[in-house]
Amino acid sequence: MKVIEGGVCAAKGFKAACCEANIKYKNRTDMAMIYSEVPCECAGTFTSNVVKAACVQWDQKLVYSGEKMQAVVVNSGIANACTGQEGFDACEATAKAVEKELGIKASSVAVASTGVIGMQLPVEKLVNGVSVMSGKLEGSIEAGTNASKAIMTTDTVHKEIAVTFEVAGKTVTLGGMCKGSGMIHPNMCTMLAFLTTDLDIDRSLLQEAVSRVVTDTFNMITVDGDTSTNDTFLVMANGLAGNEKIAKKGEAYDDFCEALFYVCRYLARKMAGDGEGATKLFEAKVVNVRSKEDARTLSRAIVASNLSKAAIYGCDANFGRFLCAMGYSGAQFDQNDVELFFESEAGRVQVFDKGTPVVFDEELAKKILGSGEVTIYVDMHEGTEEATAWGCDLTYDYVKINADYRS
Amino acid sequence: MKVIEGGVCAAKGFKAACCEANIKYKNRTDMAMIYSEVPCECAGTFTSNVVKAACVQWDQKLVYSGEKMQAVVVNSGIANACTGQEGFDACEATAKAVEKELGIKASSVAVASTGVIGMQLPVEKLVNGVSVMSGKLEGSIEAGTNASKAIMTTDTVHKEIAVTFEVAGKTVTLGGMCKGSGMIHPNMCTMLAFLTTDLDIDRSLLQEAVSRVVTDTFNMITVDGDTSTNDTFLVMANGLAGNEKIAKKGEAYDDFCEALFYVCRYLARKMAGDGEGATKLFEAKVVNVRSKEDARTLSRAIVASNLSKAAIYGCDANFGRFLCAMGYSGAQFDQNDVELFFESEAGRVQVFDKGTPVVFDEELAKKILGSGEVTIYVDMHEGTEEATAWGCDLTYDYVKINADYRS
Repeated sequence: MKVIEGGVCAAKGFKAACCEANIKYKNRTDMAMIYSEVPCECAGTFTSNVVKAACVQWDQKLVYSGEKMQAVVVNSGIANACTGQEGFDACEATAKAVEKELGIKASSVAVASTGVIGMQLPVEKLVNGVSVMSGKLEGSIEAGTNASKAIMTTDTVHKEIAVTFEVAGKTVTLGGMCKGSGMIHPNMCTMLAFLTTDLDIDRSLLQEAVSRVVTDTFNMITVDGDTSTNDTFLVMANGLAGNEKIAKKGEAYDDFCEALFYVCRYLARKMAGDGEGATKLFEAKVVNVRSKEDARTLSRAIVASNLSKAAIYGCDANFGRFLCAMGYSGAQFDQNDVELFFESEAGRVQVFDKGTPVVFDEELAKKILGSGEVTIYVDMHEGTEEATAWGCDLTYDYVKINADYRS
Repeated sequence: MKVIEGGVCAAKGFKAACCEANIKYKNRTDMAMIYSEVPCECAGTFTSNVVKAACVQWDQKLVYSGEKMQAVVVNSGIANACTGQEGFDACEATAKAVEKELGIKASSVAVASTGVIGMQLPVEKLVNGVSVMSGKLEGSIEAGTNASKAIMTTDTVHKEIAVTFEVAGKTVTLGGMCKGSGMIHPNMCTMLAFLTTDLDIDRSLLQEAVSRVVTDTFNMITVDGDTSTNDTFLVMANGLAGNEKIAKKGEAYDDFCEALFYVCRYLARKMAGDGEGATKLFEAKVVNVRSKEDARTLSRAIVASNLSKAAIYGCDANFGRFLCAMGYSGAQFDQNDVELFFESEAGRVQVFDKGTPVVFDEELAKKILGSGEVTIYVDMHEGTEEATAWGCDLTYDYVKINADYRS
């Protein structure tokens, strides 16, 4: 497997475009489209929130129906959630506009939205945006990058990656983009992430791979504990790599899963590190746990705790807060088994040793916690399972961004 | 029932004292003691966090053993959590010091601590503090008030209340104090709360009343979603009111439960409104829900959401965040049944009507959200149950307080 330049346009046959539709943001792009020259097998995972945005419900129908997918239209600024029938009508109007412009079936067009909940989308602007973008679809790396910028809301950096891997002598490409950065506590998948690949694969195997990989990547990040109404993760596979179709599990399937895991983990970490107001990536690695489920629960509880996150922001090695979060997570354990360490490129320091606080070098701890990526490493000494979760620090800027997001 | 002046010294036979033990804070009181002239029946609820502070384990033993309780010693500054054997030794040394000074059994002395986790208590200072306080125990209102001030950490106001009620012609008094204000997301009970009453009541009935009342009072508040290692709620009943002992359920028991509910609700609301960095009390009332459990889940999810809390801070009627929090809470419902309103002394405004956003008066909404106590009122139209939860807004000061709490 090799990391290459690019994102959603890296794989064969995929094009992208974006435009300034003026939906809510001014003087920036706020609509993007991904298009495949041929219809794709697809897979997806969606928010577990019972209040699902109209676009999530539209996409679920498409993914679960077995229909092929050929385009995705995304807008930022307004989430199209809690919008009643008018919201569904906006999804349909968007898909129909693509049908009219590109001559593909409306039922093969996925839609996704991110932004304020409870506001109606301006349908005319959406339809006009589709028309503009349809005229300038391109397969260049730049077109993919621009699309990844158009879907940003409070994100401070765009997020994309592409890799190649071999399937029985054929080079397959997998690329993707995503956006964060608030209301992030994915459960089934994350805010918005779109992957494109020219792999030829059976649809049910694609869905299985996606669901499996999501569990330890996008579902292990949190910014604020708020599971969005709009979380959508879509993968399109158009088969143009010319590989022998993957129709059963085996080496080729495993190679794809490995590439998929790499790409999803990269994007998930990027999203966590670019959480609203964040100054650093905050990783919790919990090892030697009784069960995989407990390992996930413990690591997620640590990165989700407001008090842990504030301590990380302040470079304060207040390790009791991490133990406290583990304690209320729901996992059962004995504090007398637990060892805690802080780690970063600046070094490693032990702070808790099986029930008892360790006298540690506060200066070194401060330096470690001052790094751009900080890990809390927890050895439970109770089993063999492990998990890693990613979050970010809690800062003044998080409050600032969210105290008046609508204006 | 009548609200009267005072707190833990209001009921007959209770005394209190406090002192400057210099445990962590300087130039302020940081130890308090409550003492009853006669041994008390007692009841308690404790944190559900599996990482329990040494003092919590000490008190659980006392409460569950059936032993009578005669004194409580509390310190602020250090939590005595994650402190291993040395932490237990500190509890024992404190109780033994009381035994020596006051001639009561060490096994009848409860201890409680609040502050930084993972630091050892200075035992000599504790023992000296007990000696000082033993010499100045008083039953005055002022002594109770001073005790409630000594247990504060990041609290900005002390919290106490007392009421009287009649039991078959006898006047009974119930008083209490508590402290917040961070790491508040009680599950079984809250940070630290102590009630004293001169009621004569059977111990198992007392425990039953306490457990029942906690569910809809202390367990319905949240400041930051972090369930502390130290949550302790203790009730001491010394029987000096001279009422006919309450030995079974009936009118007298119900009257006591009513007073207990009033006192606990008052203290719980005070704690939420004085959450770390808070500028206002944030209440969520959810009515016409399918089950009591769902009603509690929905109302707690709303006040626990960082995004809801930040919107309340910014007086931003961004109602989608509240719906989003309800959606990921775990309760099942149809968004097309739901109505949402914001309420305060400044008025009432509907923002969501059964699946569709309402065009509302933004000026009025801003005014309502600018009040010191803000309620979001949710009508689910799906059943008959209801619940109310209390929290506070998320502010810059919350981050400031917690980014470097130890220094």
